[in-house]
Amino acid sequence: MSRVYNFSAGPAAIPDPVLARIKDDIPDWNGTGMSVMEVSHRSKEFVEAAAKAEQDLRDLLAIPDNYSVLFPQGGATLQFSMVPLNLSTEGQTVDYVLSGSWSKKAISEASKYCNVNVAADSSDQNFTYIPEESSWNRSKGAAYLHYCSNETIAGVEFPFIPDSGGAPLVSDMSSTLLSRPIDVSRFGVIYAGAQKNIGPAGITLVIVRKDLIGGARSWTPSLLDYSVYDKSDSMSNTPPVFTWYVAGLVFEYLKGLGGLVAVAKINERKAQKLYSAIDESSFYSNPVRKDCRSWMNVPFILQNPDLDAKFLSEALAAGFANLKGHRSVGGMRASIYNAMPEAGIDALISFMREFERVNG
Amino acid sequence: MSRVYNFSAGPAAIPDPVLARIKDDIPDWNGTGMSVMEVSHRSKEFVEAAAKAEQDLRDLLAIPDNYSVLFPQGGATLQFSMVPLNLSTEGQTVDYVLSGSWSKKAISEASKYCNVNVAADSSDQNFTYIPEESSWNRSKGAAYLHYCSNETIAGVEFPFIPDSGGAPLVSDMSSTLLSRPIDVSRFGVIYAGAQKNIGPAGITLVIVRKDLIGGARSWTPSLLDYSVYDKSDSMSNTPPVFTWYVAGLVFEYLKGLGGLVAVAKINERKAQKLYSAIDESSFYSNPVRKDCRSWMNVPFILQNPDLDAKFLSEALAAGFANLKGHRSVGGMRASIYNAMPEAGIDALISFMREFERVNG
Repeated sequence: MSRVYNFSAGPAAIPDPVLARIKDDIPDWNGTGMSVMEVSHRSKEFVEAAAKAEQDLRDLLAIPDNYSVLFPQGGATLQFSMVPLNLSTEGQTVDYVLSGSWSKKAISEASKYCNVNVAADSSDQNFTYIPEESSWNRSKGAAYLHYCSNETIAGVEFPFIPDSGGAPLVSDMSSTLLSRPIDVSRFGVIYAGAQKNIGPAGITLVIVRKDLIGGARSWTPSLLDYSVYDKSDSMSNTPPVFTWYVAGLVFEYLKGLGGLVAVAKINERKAQKLYSAIDESSFYSNPVRKDCRSWMNVPFILQNPDLDAKFLSEALAAGFANLKGHRSVGGMRASIYNAMPEAGIDALISFMREFERVNG
Repeated sequence: MSRVYNFSAGPAAIPDPVLARIKDDIPDWNGTGMSVMEVSHRSKEFVEAAAKAEQDLRDLLAIPDNYSVLFPQGGATLQFSMVPLNLSTEGQTVDYVLSGSWSKKAISEASKYCNVNVAADSSDQNFTYIPEESSWNRSKGAAYLHYCSNETIAGVEFPFIPDSGGAPLVSDMSSTLLSRPIDVSRFGVIYAGAQKNIGPAGITLVIVRKDLIGGARSWTPSLLDYSVYDKSDSMSNTPPVFTWYVAGLVFEYLKGLGGLVAVAKINERKAQKLYSAIDESSFYSNPVRKDCRSWMNVPFILQNPDLDAKFLSEALAAGFANLKGHRSVGGMRASIYNAMPEAGIDALISFMREFERVNG
């Protein structure tokens, strides 16, 4: 089959030029006579590639010098454990915002280690909005405030950076990171699984303020301790070399596009086009409050769910893959990360209009 | 550069036909119109590929039905934490054999969670042998007995499966797994990082007897709990899709070679050729007791260490990469996993003889 427009929520599309480079680099990467899957993580070539990846990421996000960048495995889910184990002490109170399925999982995991206070909760309206900050119930002396900046399932994204009242601010940015500029200095920890805007699944980015490293509980498993990664440039054990390399290619590609200011303009335009097409139609709809709509994950439903299966099969035949909504909410979802070209949005909108014309 | 013979201890060489297949599958895997890096782990295509990989592994190792196969991230190092957290209770005694650097790390991590009894210890002779089993000091009622079947740094390999006296037997088989047949039914848990005989770094194989699953301590981080993987086919969160796919290709390739009986014959012959060449020379030597020599990692030293740098640079120029010994022991090390062809051993021996002739 020729390449499709891949609307998967993750693992998600990877930019075509990055894939072409990966293909070219097999079976001889960088003049080593080996593919990058086969090189030692201690080799000069890989150590340089890993450091360049970090520097390119630092450039893209303007990460201040008092932040470390760590590359653990385990995705955002392992961070659900690592954050409380590194940033709080036994029984301490931590604040979490409950804004969807992912923050719910983060809360469940943190509850093993801390006294979790849910500072805000949008479950009353199926996670289709972000509660006004003035209504939040923050704890005094919380070890940190955690929120998920973009909930991929409901397609809701924070339109602001919360005020944590002095506590370190921690954010699961799996679906936001690299989609737009972020003021990293506002955060204690930012983390993201790779399989949205970064690269293949199997590596995680953790950007952590250095003063928050070193306080893990004494029994923390070594690979869940930020300081172990910080001291070893994330190579205390064998890192996922290939995945790290791909992430580096993606960072280089994004710099070549003009960095995150340029990327954000494209993403905003892509999202606005798709939301406008949905809003202008009475055949499709999106339930999320307009100021909280995700740039990255656009769920929509057909007014007549009996047409869902037909929509999906005709979409796939026309080259639009993975439009099925998450099983917990149904309907459709178009995830439109950085690697989704604007032409893919235009083509999807044309397809949706034609489907509506025929079936509406 | 053309392809080299890659003697890296890990990440290590991957079979050429597997690399060719990976290259072919970019950017369209299996008719999906996507590379495998971009497909959803919930897609029919990937779920099938993952299940086939598991079945091929079960076929290769004749894994009994009362064992689960798990695919976590984190390498063997994360298993150093997961084994005690899943298989023992607080303060319980566990037996470990100290036979090299990796078992030492495993002991250090287990000591956070258990009372570790070192049942045998070969540090008195720089880990160049495996202590006779009759001399071991096993505990009564130990939760399990742990050993590392092949220590990659000293190049020492267990020539027998220990008798654990009824306790579950646990083995770090990172460098042994898939090099030869194993009687899985003798074990409670077998685990292995991928980057030796399995595929790229970033996935781990855990073969665990089903009755040992479900006893993790209550505060165990979710992704360190065997039952979380067992219940979800290792997809409770996004698994490392690409790495899993490559592992599957390797399993298929090994089956095509005739399975592990055939593979073991090749490996034994390769190792014997190289050890014989070393033993027959007075220029090179290997310090490991003959009955405990690893089939996979062959360390050797030059009698004159002043020649080390020259040996390494001439070897690299001749197409033999990554022969430098581990920094903790110096000298040379040829790691000769499954993907190292016998022709690579023959060529290395010729090179070593010529180097000896010129410099000896």
